[in-house]
Amino acid sequence: MDSVPANEKQAYRGLLGQDFTDTVIKSMGPKTSPRLREVMTSFIQHIHDFARETNLTVDEWAAAVQMINWAGQMSNDSRNEGQLMCDIIGLESLVDDITYQAAVESNNPATTSAILGPFWRETPIRKNGTSISSDTPADAKLVFMHGKVSNASTGAPVANATVDIWQASTNGLYEQQDVNQKDHNLRGKFVTDSNGEYSLYCLRPTPYPVPNDGPSGKLLTLLDRHEWRPAHIHLIVLAEGYKSITTQVFDRDSKYLEDDSVFAVKEGLTATFTERKGDPQAKLELVYNINLAPAS
Amino acid sequence: MDSVPANEKQAYRGLLGQDFTDTVIKSMGPKTSPRLREVMTSFIQHIHDFARETNLTVDEWAAAVQMINWAGQMSNDSRNEGQLMCDIIGLESLVDDITYQAAVESNNPATTSAILGPFWRETPIRKNGTSISSDTPADAKLVFMHGKVSNASTGAPVANATVDIWQASTNGLYEQQDVNQKDHNLRGKFVTDSNGEYSLYCLRPTPYPVPNDGPSGKLLTLLDRHEWRPAHIHLIVLAEGYKSITTQVFDRDSKYLEDDSVFAVKEGLTATFTERKGDPQAKLELVYNINLAPAS
Repeated sequence: MDSVPANEKQAYRGLLGQDFTDTVIKSMGPKTSPRLREVMTSFIQHIHDFARETNLTVDEWAAAVQMINWAGQMSNDSRNEGQLMCDIIGLESLVDDITYQAAVESNNPATTSAILGPFWRETPIRKNGTSISSDTPADAKLVFMHGKVSNASTGAPVANATVDIWQASTNGLYEQQDVNQKDHNLRGKFVTDSNGEYSLYCLRPTPYPVPNDGPSGKLLTLLDRHEWRPAHIHLIVLAEGYKSITTQVFDRDSKYLEDDSVFAVKEGLTATFTERKGDPQAKLELVYNINLAPAS
Repeated sequence: MDSVPANEKQAYRGLLGQDFTDTVIKSMGPKTSPRLREVMTSFIQHIHDFARETNLTVDEWAAAVQMINWAGQMSNDSRNEGQLMCDIIGLESLVDDITYQAAVESNNPATTSAILGPFWRETPIRKNGTSISSDTPADAKLVFMHGKVSNASTGAPVANATVDIWQASTNGLYEQQDVNQKDHNLRGKFVTDSNGEYSLYCLRPTPYPVPNDGPSGKLLTLLDRHEWRPAHIHLIVLAEGYKSITTQVFDRDSKYLEDDSVFAVKEGLTATFTERKGDPQAKLELVYNINLAPAS
């Protein structure tokens, strides 16, 4: 792209103004669902305004189309590059926040949400107190992670809640990205007992870069940004009668908390890993409690 | 999607306001090119505003990501579904207009541009007066198309201009979409003679639907829109010392001139097919002259 300084912005050079945008919006027929009409009206208006504000050229637009097609071509069951493209411009974090705030009463002290990310997949239930690490790397530190799932309104324990957990290994890869990891390594579902409690052994998470071999990596390079995510563990917590929660726990001592490449870090999602004594399996402990908002 | 009437728009439900958007924009590093910074600043702002204005949910966003990935997966050397997705929301027409207006002096009576579309490809030069139809269908009408390429400022003829022409067959398919058409059928490059003139035989174009087996077709259905394009012939005209022009000639008598599914019809791009006498090869004639703007 040419080097046009941002302070030398030119006035809109084309002929297709708001009349043209109105024509495109009005082309939606009467059977369009009201919600889709609302979404597409706003989308078309913003995309056209963006093109006019920047005097977007055919070559620039074609380069973007090529990146979008490339994203689709790289996506498969174990990778979602279109999602990652959205993540690096903060869009998943934004829609996640909108969705969660809409679902939860604002005065409920429910656990804050964070983005799903592209690496969740369905995984079997494991017994409380077992480890999700099937082949622990030499550079990994094991952690005993446990906590209580509670009703965010009453504080009562929530039994039979499903705590679905996944994390990357110390090489920065999730099991489906890494032929050297066993199937379902570093992921598992745990069901809370009658006291609302769950427990497992996992790895102390470590920072890792998002995949940089596709259009997201190319865009990050063009934007002079790094690919790194701070150390985190992913969770989805579900229980009958409660709003489900998708979130991430961040290591308070991690790098990149201030400049997460996918903008997922929020207030209240960091936690401290403490020393654990007398446990031959783990020298670290993480207590992580979850408050679920009632569904109604 | 839920049926939320457009007149019951809800206020923004999330917590991530302009501060969040500013954080994403400010994450661009100092080595970002000024032009890319300008484009991405506007893009990120508009996409975030769109999500906030519509209270876009994770499920809705994920459905859009799925369609975008699907577009990439369908795209290959003979098909560009990402481009088609842009076309049906008028974006290619808009950036084409911006690009062309920026390139041409506004007081030059140069031929108006129109979108490239997804079906152009490099093709060999043919001799003036020859036919681009190698296996003319029974329902086709042959046309003798000819005209003069001129300097838009002086009116002088432009010799050695390349007139690159392509069109769909009467079944609505371009040759690369259709195994029954010969390679390079209904496309060719013609070079103007010393009088600036070119000539060829082609088909009278017929309306056709854009491909509806992918996400663009799905979106058109959801938007209660038809897939049809008015009858047209594509052209790219290039000559040394002139701005190149990408355009489409529309049959003035065609259906869908008012509601082209890709919004490419503009004032001054329609032409009339007239009766041709004494030519055993064609009973119709199209005179189409092209005015090129000088490059400087």
